[in-house]
Amino acid sequence: MTRPAGPAPAPSDGAVARSDGDPTVTRADVDAAAGRIAGYVRRTPVLAVDPAEAGGDAGDAGDGAGALWFKLEQLQETGTFKARGAVNRIRSAAEDGELTAAGVVTASGGNAGVAVAYAAARLGVPAEIFVPTISAPAKVRRLHALGATVVQVGREYAEAHQAATARAAETGAAFCHAYDQPAMVAGAGTLGVELWEQSGGVDTVLVAVGGGGLMAGVAAALDGLARVVGVEPAGAPTLHAALAARRPTDVTVSGVAADSLGARRLGRIAFDVAVGCGVRSVLVDDDDLVAARRWLWDRYRLVVEHGAAAALAALTAGVYRPEPEERVAVVLCGANTDPADLR
Amino acid sequence: MTRPAGPAPAPSDGAVARSDGDPTVTRADVDAAAGRIAGYVRRTPVLAVDPAEAGGDAGDAGDGAGALWFKLEQLQETGTFKARGAVNRIRSAAEDGELTAAGVVTASGGNAGVAVAYAAARLGVPAEIFVPTISAPAKVRRLHALGATVVQVGREYAEAHQAATARAAETGAAFCHAYDQPAMVAGAGTLGVELWEQSGGVDTVLVAVGGGGLMAGVAAALDGLARVVGVEPAGAPTLHAALAARRPTDVTVSGVAADSLGARRLGRIAFDVAVGCGVRSVLVDDDDLVAARRWLWDRYRLVVEHGAAAALAALTAGVYRPEPEERVAVVLCGANTDPADLR
Repeated sequence: MTRPAGPAPAPSDGAVARSDGDPTVTRADVDAAAGRIAGYVRRTPVLAVDPAEAGGDAGDAGDGAGALWFKLEQLQETGTFKARGAVNRIRSAAEDGELTAAGVVTASGGNAGVAVAYAAARLGVPAEIFVPTISAPAKVRRLHALGATVVQVGREYAEAHQAATARAAETGAAFCHAYDQPAMVAGAGTLGVELWEQSGGVDTVLVAVGGGGLMAGVAAALDGLARVVGVEPAGAPTLHAALAARRPTDVTVSGVAADSLGARRLGRIAFDVAVGCGVRSVLVDDDDLVAARRWLWDRYRLVVEHGAAAALAALTAGVYRPEPEERVAVVLCGANTDPADLR
Repeated sequence: MTRPAGPAPAPSDGAVARSDGDPTVTRADVDAAAGRIAGYVRRTPVLAVDPAEAGGDAGDAGDGAGALWFKLEQLQETGTFKARGAVNRIRSAAEDGELTAAGVVTASGGNAGVAVAYAAARLGVPAEIFVPTISAPAKVRRLHALGATVVQVGREYAEAHQAATARAAETGAAFCHAYDQPAMVAGAGTLGVELWEQSGGVDTVLVAVGGGGLMAGVAAALDGLARVVGVEPAGAPTLHAALAARRPTDVTVSGVAADSLGARRLGRIAFDVAVGCGVRSVLVDDDDLVAARRWLWDRYRLVVEHGAAAALAALTAGVYRPEPEERVAVVLCGANTDPADLR
């Protein structure tokens, strides 16, 4: 029902480099994840938004669409969708006999780290979280408050990541990747199933892309039902670059959303799913993100982090223009942000 | 299913002073209001909250309850539930032939004024909003932005109110009361019907009380279905004082929630409905409000104004303790607040 929205539509011919060995996440994986996470994470509500309610000013979100929904995933446990994948990852590991007394280990000073710490605490599993030495004290305190062991090592994320994987090999702890792991992707995808049920069906879902776990999860969940458009800041275009290069490729990360969408490279699973499901890519500017985040507070009293505003910005900035009668959903995926600048 | 929660249960004998002439708002009025406001205001979502999800710490909201819901009315047009009543009031006036080219007039520099300005703009009706000269420039700008004519008169609200009623008499404009008018109460009550439908039924609804319009609307909407508990700051106890005095009586208003719950006296309609429906009254301290507002941001990434946190504070402060299996709903009714202190 929609026209192509943005450059670099996903190629689907055999020329694309696909991964070997990595399982592609499917709807069945998402449904299994939904069973694992029920009771440990929130079923976040959707808000029906009248596309025309604000009168059709230039730049109004979704003007012209047949229906518009916001999926309020920023109300999730730990403030982001990451809690879904983290719970699914740990419970999957337990089912598979991968979980020992060493518990789980991850490398993340951001949303994924908090989600793993939360999930581990809820499931009674020890968690070691590796973060760079430069991590903000507030983030470290939050991990401590969730009962995690925090290991500060290295000046950059890559060093913390290396130390975390080495630690997992040493202790036998189950390593939790921030996004590029089937259970993380499938867990994130449960959001898509909920959205479908709550809205009664949509044509298009706009999601922010960093490492691509959420995008891939939703695309897998709704494959054949709805199209997914991945929205990312021009300063962190992992999906855009991967589709152009036909493989995940490093990008330079900058901009206001770097704290949550700061992955340097699209995940391999995300790439495979994006290509397999025909996910589109659109880019928005930092100014668009800031304006969308502001708009959401001014008109809806919703607070999101800059990265989570990306999906909305595709509409408010006019980068993605719905067709008449198109049913559009925007995933608001996180709110680990300082609301002080919304006064 | 619940035990009495707080002092001064509403007397229902004949000794209570009831009003003469004022229509008591009923469910039928609320249902009629729902038809009038559909398409002009939002059907705000509810969030299902696991009463035990946070592990049963002392002070956790709703610990022990059978189910807990938050009605996210702070996501309403204009940021508060007042938009419902304002639309219903203006459309009712139009139906009744009360509406002339002079439009509507009200006195309020706060949430009700913004709601009337919004409703008038949506309905294409001129609006004059009377506010005291000391009103914050930001509030005046907001009214202007909605297309209203703003008249600044008097040093206190009472003077603005007097000028507004005089103006209505002079021009024939329909006067919109901030809360003590049947159409305002019935409009607010539509929130209760939605909540009932969305939750699948509740036993108890906790609502903040200022002038009492929301409390009365919800009580009328759910009379015979659920009990309503009115929660107010100890520094602005209009319902508490009215139930004790058996009539609406002036109170001295103070505290952090005075901007939204600052009515000096319970509305007459609110009193009649409260007595007729057996609404209970509980009081919370300012510290409880502040803590509840903070808790809501920390755990749910929801921002509300201090007044709207009152209903939640009854739970988080342990002033209202649900019975086992009791199904409780908390109405979060407004978010016209500065979120800067939630950083």
